[in-house]
Parts: sequence; structure tokens; C-alpha cells
Amino acid sequence: MRAALIQMPVTRNKEENIKTAVRRLREVKARGADIAVLPEMFCCPYDSACFRTFGEGPGGQAQSALSALAKELELYVVGGSLPELEGDAVYNTSYVYGREGELLAKHRKAHLFDIDVEGGQRFRESDTLSPGNAVTTFETEFGTMGLCICFDLRFEELARCMCLRGAKCVFVPAAFNMTTGPAHWELLFRQRAVDNQCFTVGVSPARDETEAYVAYGNSIAVDPWGSVLCRAGAGEATLYADLDFRQVDAVRRQLPILSARRTDLYEVREKA
Amino acid sequence: MRAALIQMPVTRNKEENIKTAVRRLREVKARGADIAVLPEMFCCPYDSACFRTFGEGPGGQAQSALSALAKELELYVVGGSLPELEGDAVYNTSYVYGREGELLAKHRKAHLFDIDVEGGQRFRESDTLSPGNAVTTFETEFGTMGLCICFDLRFEELARCMCLRGAKCVFVPAAFNMTTGPAHWELLFRQRAVDNQCFTVGVSPARDETEAYVAYGNSIAVDPWGSVLCRAGAGEATLYADLDFRQVDAVRRQLPILSARRTDLYEVREKA
Repeated sequence: MRAALIQMPVTRNKEENIKTAVRRLREVKARGADIAVLPEMFCCPYDSACFRTFGEGPGGQAQSALSALAKELELYVVGGSLPELEGDAVYNTSYVYGREGELLAKHRKAHLFDIDVEGGQRFRESDTLSPGNAVTTFETEFGTMGLCICFDLRFEELARCMCLRGAKCVFVPAAFNMTTGPAHWELLFRQRAVDNQCFTVGVSPARDETEAYVAYGNSIAVDPWGSVLCRAGAGEATLYADLDFRQVDAVRRQLPILSARRTDLYEVREKA
Repeated sequence: MRAALIQMPVTRNKEENIKTAVRRLREVKARGADIAVLPEMFCCPYDSACFRTFGEGPGGQAQSALSALAKELELYVVGGSLPELEGDAVYNTSYVYGREGELLAKHRKAHLFDIDVEGGQRFRESDTLSPGNAVTTFETEFGTMGLCICFDLRFEELARCMCLRGAKCVFVPAAFNMTTGPAHWELLFRQRAVDNQCFTVGVSPARDETEAYVAYGNSIAVDPWGSVLCRAGAGEATLYADLDFRQVDAVRRQLPILSARRTDLYEVREKA
């Protein structure tokens, strides 16, 4: 499965952002992508003040554009994330479309990002956003895939639950910052891959030093042995990662971890 | 709490190995250590053929020596591990002694190391060893500490369970090899620290290229932000890490992970 990691710039113009995404989706299809991944908040600045104004309800502008492209290009689209409006609530939501344009999965960020590092990053998503309440996976002809958003990846149980459902790759639209990015970005994508013996793919917006919240960039794909397949820099970039899922089986056979868990001593389980 | 990481050579002479450990324990006490950590299989070559002959039952030679030293020096001793004999079974067991020489904890490696990497390391502990059946923590005047052995650390649930019990540091006598060491050693110690917002300390035997199983060395201590406090090379070394447990509280406050888990969506629990 060829995955395209679209590290695009995000401006303060929603229509322009959607146009950028559409143009990039066409490009990656032309280069053989099976699945394209957009960044977290790909059409909205990562700014609490913007979430509601850039948000949309069911069938909104961004969703319609992604669905139409997925169908036209027969391409899986992991639509980064965007502010989803429902009643008074705003969610940070990732929509995934299948090759016929159908909505395959919808993940609402379940762990809201509240951080206050002394001398570093401060942000409180929970002031403006509501959390999702689900573990999310979806099916493709390549097998089961996992999906979460940014801070969700910090919670090992979530990736574990996806992989116990059978996920062979975990896709993560994300926007780490200049405090947590250098400290933990690569580490997290590598370790989730090693612990679960799966691929991980993280896609960030391109870095924009003029924004209040500066995204780290560094979109990344990691294989089940923890090796970095590709990693972007700070700026605009499109990367391709060819994920060979036979490697998942090979690694799990050579170094049994997922199957060797002592579920008589501890248990992770999903709750309803 | 000053932790001493004793990366000692392990020879084919049990008495000599114990003498080395004893000498090193006296040295680290003189340099202000509160807790000393020996490597996995510190008095026995990491060789299936040796486990039974180098093994010992309750109150055996190595255990007696460590307990006596802990009492004499008023020093916590995490006694690496050694082959424990009980009936027909052999366990890979870590004994921890308190400042009065009392047995504070005993952890039997719960995940046996069976690996068969193509073109790399092969080893099957389960051919000769029996697994332990417990999550292990122990109490000190500095707080609760976690304990596991080598391959155990690969199973994220185990460290999580220790930290949910309150462990502020996870001690890991370990002997990674020249396949898994370069690939995953530092990654694992850093990620368990970041995920659980605790310290991690890993202590390996010094590398001996003449042995069939070549230990990676690289004994390491990591802080709750994932920063490497110290890391040895391949050879004999003693490292000191000053663990300031206020850092655990500070990191947990600034970037809530352990406390922000969505236990309504998933749950890790210990089983009896």
C-alpha cells in the first residue's frame, strides 16, 4: 500500500486550504498513492478562536470536497482533521473516505490537548473542544487500519486497542509543536510501531513561524521494527511510504510481543 | 535518590562474579549511592546451559552476599537477576534488598525471551526457564519503585501497571543483544519514561564479544521527560544518576498523560 503524507501549509483562508488539499490529492494519485493523509486541522489554523468559525456540520464544504475527490480518484483519503460542529459542541474530527467516496470512518479526537510546560508550550483544547468517545479503525482491501489524532497517540492504550482489533497501520493527523516535537515526535511514532509491531504514519501541517501555535512538521512513517521510512523537514512536502504488510507478520513472528502478552497478569480492554 | 548503575563483566566463575558485585557495591556506597542496580544474570553467563548449574535456592550464595552487603552498607540493592531454583523449575529472578538487608521484593521475569530474527539474534529462554506470574513494585522512603527484567519492559502494560500502583522509577536489569540493542534499547527506556512520566533505569552486563550471547551494554537512566541522564558504552562502567522525584510531579502537571487517560474508553487492569 502506497501512503502519501501531505505536509501542506495551512492558511487563514478555508477555501484556499481546501484547494491546496485537492490539488495535492490529484498529485499523489498520479504518483500511485493508494491512501493519502492530510494534516490535523488541514483547513483551519490551530487556534481556539478559529475552531468554531472554520467548523462545519454534516456534509460541509471540506467533507464534500474530500469525498468527491476520493470517489473521482478511487483513492483512500484520511482527511486530516477539521472542526466538526454538532449543536453547541465542536469536535476535532478526522473523516476517512473510501475509494467510492463513502465515509469509512470518523474519529473525534478523544484526548484533548491541555499542556502548560514551564518556559514552553501552553494550549488548552478543552476550553473550546469536546472530546470523542471511541476507538476508531476502518477496513480496506489491505487489512484493518487504525486512526487517531495527535495527542491521542500519547495514550498507549488507544494504539494497543486498535492493534488488538487487527490494525496493521495507525494513521495520525497531528500537529506537535516546537516544545513537544523535538522532544517526543519521532520517539512516539517509533515506539508505538515497535510496541504494536505495526506501521505508524504521522502527518503534520507545514511549519508556519508566524502563527501563535507553530506546528513541528516532520511528517513521518515508521515500520514495525521501528525504522523510520521517511521523515519530512519543517516546510511544505509530500512524502511517499510503501507499506508492505508482510513485514508486520514477519516482525511479529521473529520477536513475539503482541502475541506474547501475559493477559493472565494484565488486560487492556475497550469499554463500551 | 542517587542510583548507581553497575555495568559489570560477567564471567563463567560464579564466585568471581559475586566478588566483583560486592566490590562495586562498596565503591558506590562510598560515592553516596542510595540504591545500586546490578545487571541481569550478574553472576551467571547468559547461556541456557548455565542457568541450572549457576542457579540457587532460597538463601543461596549470591542472595546471602547481597543481603549482607545491603545491611552492612545500609544501601538498597537491586540484585540484577540470577537463576532461581525451585523444585524442577528455574526462574530468572531479581532480588531486592532494603537498607537492613531484608528482602524487599523478588521479581521473576514474567515474559520469557523467545526471539528468532532472520540474520540476527536467536534465543529461546522458554526452553529452560519458567515465567513469573506477578507485577512487582516495592516501597522505599523515596516512594514506590517498579521492577522488571529485560524482555518484560517490551510489554507496555507491565510498566503501566507498576506506575498506576505509584512507581516513580522502573528498574530494569537487562541484557539486550547486538540485534535488539542498537534497534530498540534507548527507544524503550525513553518511551516507557515518557508514557508513564517516570524515571527508568536499565543495567546491562558489560559486553563480552567472546560469549555466544553478546550483551549490548549501554546501561541507561532516563528522566520523566524522556531525556537520557546517563548512558554507558559497551565496557565495564559504573554510572550515577541523581533522580529528583519532584520532576515526576512537575512533568505530570505540565503535560497530563497518566491522569488524562480515558478510562471510560479503555482500561488496563492487573489480574489476580
